[in-house]
Amino acid sequence: MNRNKIFSPLFTDMYELTMMLAYSENNLAANATFSLYIRGSAWLKRGFFVAAGLEDALYGLEGMRFSQADMEYLQSLNLFPKEFIRSLSGFRFTGDVWAMPEGTICFADEPLMEVTAPIAEAQLVETFLINTLGFQTNVATKALRCIHAAKGRPIADFSLRRTQGLDAGMQVARSAYISGFTGTSNVLAGKKYGIPVSGTMAHSFVLAVGNDLEAFRAYSRSFPDNSIFLIDTRDVIEGARSAVKIALEMAANGHLLKGVRIDSGEMVEVSKNVRHILNEAGLHQVQIIATSGFDEFEIEKTLAGEAAIDAFGVGTKLGVSADTPYLDMVYKLARYDGRDVKKNSPGKITLAGEKQVFRKTDRTGGYVADTLGTRNEMIDEAEPLLIKVMEKGLSIQAPPTLHDIRKRIQSGFSNLDDGYKSLINPDKYPIRLSRRLSEIQ
Amino acid sequence: MNRNKIFSPLFTDMYELTMMLAYSENNLAANATFSLYIRGSAWLKRGFFVAAGLEDALYGLEGMRFSQADMEYLQSLNLFPKEFIRSLSGFRFTGDVWAMPEGTICFADEPLMEVTAPIAEAQLVETFLINTLGFQTNVATKALRCIHAAKGRPIADFSLRRTQGLDAGMQVARSAYISGFTGTSNVLAGKKYGIPVSGTMAHSFVLAVGNDLEAFRAYSRSFPDNSIFLIDTRDVIEGARSAVKIALEMAANGHLLKGVRIDSGEMVEVSKNVRHILNEAGLHQVQIIATSGFDEFEIEKTLAGEAAIDAFGVGTKLGVSADTPYLDMVYKLARYDGRDVKKNSPGKITLAGEKQVFRKTDRTGGYVADTLGTRNEMIDEAEPLLIKVMEKGLSIQAPPTLHDIRKRIQSGFSNLDDGYKSLINPDKYPIRLSRRLSEIQ
Repeated sequence: MNRNKIFSPLFTDMYELTMMLAYSENNLAANATFSLYIRGSAWLKRGFFVAAGLEDALYGLEGMRFSQADMEYLQSLNLFPKEFIRSLSGFRFTGDVWAMPEGTICFADEPLMEVTAPIAEAQLVETFLINTLGFQTNVATKALRCIHAAKGRPIADFSLRRTQGLDAGMQVARSAYISGFTGTSNVLAGKKYGIPVSGTMAHSFVLAVGNDLEAFRAYSRSFPDNSIFLIDTRDVIEGARSAVKIALEMAANGHLLKGVRIDSGEMVEVSKNVRHILNEAGLHQVQIIATSGFDEFEIEKTLAGEAAIDAFGVGTKLGVSADTPYLDMVYKLARYDGRDVKKNSPGKITLAGEKQVFRKTDRTGGYVADTLGTRNEMIDEAEPLLIKVMEKGLSIQAPPTLHDIRKRIQSGFSNLDDGYKSLINPDKYPIRLSRRLSEIQ
Repeated sequence: MNRNKIFSPLFTDMYELTMMLAYSENNLAANATFSLYIRGSAWLKRGFFVAAGLEDALYGLEGMRFSQADMEYLQSLNLFPKEFIRSLSGFRFTGDVWAMPEGTICFADEPLMEVTAPIAEAQLVETFLINTLGFQTNVATKALRCIHAAKGRPIADFSLRRTQGLDAGMQVARSAYISGFTGTSNVLAGKKYGIPVSGTMAHSFVLAVGNDLEAFRAYSRSFPDNSIFLIDTRDVIEGARSAVKIALEMAANGHLLKGVRIDSGEMVEVSKNVRHILNEAGLHQVQIIATSGFDEFEIEKTLAGEAAIDAFGVGTKLGVSADTPYLDMVYKLARYDGRDVKKNSPGKITLAGEKQVFRKTDRTGGYVADTLGTRNEMIDEAEPLLIKVMEKGLSIQAPPTLHDIRKRIQSGFSNLDDGYKSLINPDKYPIRLSRRLSEIQ
């Protein structure tokens, strides 16, 4: 999503449009407030979340316009009266938006965003907002779990081939980077976002050249100071020995081999053997990069076995958030025409009213507990997390840089106790309701 | 993806570009053939697949051009020599592509596509091809499993808010439709692909209006012949009674209520109770549409309980293919410069050579077994499934319509025995190697 780009409001569910008509024909034009949040049961698998996607969300809201072709298409459905379709030609999103800044560490049940606008407008943008914030929040969260598991080792995003579509690949690269990944293999994301790009070689390169030794030599000629050799095309131990041989040739010419990559096998054992071979040749500085099927769980397990891995490439399982490929993120009406409302279906409860999330911290900045309160109350010594980011359809300020978001995540994460960071069975972060919010439920 | 649209080759992994340079500097410019297939272990969770995504794949290959900005970005990385970057300005994909037509029922280990081109070109497009064919094949397959489970009941795609990004939403709508879904809630997909769109109302509509009765009445005024009432905002039984009341008012004015939607609760029990209430009022024609958390497994289970459900809306779990959010689809070098090659890492085996998939059918068209053979052999009474779809970088014919693809899937699926269609523990469809293909392994 780019600023100033027109974005079709037809990227929505049909019922948003049918409801728009029904609102309009039944004189329901008052302001509504919708709360966007992740349903509470999600904490079982995720002790924390990283709010992400706000930049794309705001650009999308600002750029929503029905084109002539959009309106002709709606007309062709023979479902909407002509005057309704004509009214869409002037459509702008004119609402106010409160949201957590990108990179805020947050929790299930907390509003990440609240949208206040004439109900038809607020309704129309539901599908887009859940899509954009949901996926990026999901991936940024998983990426931060990977960073946590890797205990300081660098990780690069290698997921592009397996992401669900093209812009998912872009969103994953960005979300992983803000959560602390060192870079991505996605060249277009490198260009668009200024994220460092990295890449090594594929098995096909070795096969095309014919054998490890010739392939490594050929590659090192093109990248004398940036070579990482893929050593498991045929036999990883033989591959490591060939890498040593070429690394020594390179050293004789004043070049250092950067690393070797292992993409298969039992990583603990294999990485230790490879490290041994490299060290015996005095190549202590040559890094071992591991790239086969990693996610936060595999990283934790492999490092618990004291694998000799210096850096990870994490791909598929991050790119689709394989263990939780979707978040149960919802967008629920909380207030209409000055009246606080809530839904109460079995097992699905929403909180009425315009809200604020207040965070209490201890003296060192550590997160103690959050309180869900009403929008306008004040809670002593607690920081309100939702800030006004859009007024009357226009963003209030320029989005933060990726660097700023990255710093916010790093700092916030350091303020979170380890119990909430557990990959399985995390502690449940305490969230309370303020008295004023309780009273309107 | 649209025909004639420029597509940036930077939508790729960095190593494809570094390998391009190394190929070029080491005079590796001969033709290579890559095989794209789903790794064999996938059959444990999927007894069959539906090949999908070819139209987007071919458009992407045809439209790949490095823009000036792309080349400037690569230059800025200080990794590639100027002459290499200059050479990209004339880049076109000039290869030949063999592929299964979209909608072909296929199996793990079978090549869905083979690409033959100068190795640098064939290498560059790997990431894009796996991304595009992998996701659409995955979702089309899951959609067809849903259709199978629903035993003739119509299903609509309601996944847009939870798909992983914007174009995933488009690809899901298309993939579900070709596999037999009746339509989608995604209005933009309706416009782009001509897929029927459908939509009802959300809980927010009921909450904004104030109660079920008023909300149904208001909605029916706007859509007198197209109303489906959402009846579980507060209490589904009360909701059903309110729907009956408004349906009778509508009938008095010559209009029929189309259906009621249930979005929560224990579906078998709830749907039967709602059916009873509708039938008691003589509203036998009013359909019950169920939309809460369905996928093929839930549909099968719910119908096994004899739920009174006439149609399904399937959302999140289809949109991200929740039980298998990615396919282990790979793109492996099979031949280079006239030499058949294969990789042989632990647990990862590729078949060398240019291949063809031959399908044997019985007298009624039923699928008996497939044989993987060499590209040029003939196998008696067996149909070759890979056809040449691109020559020298240009598509050989216009893509089939969605209607044609839909028919192909329906017909192919009817030729597949039920054992292969089981949602869990499917039979393993027999795939053999021809003698000629075995001999080059």
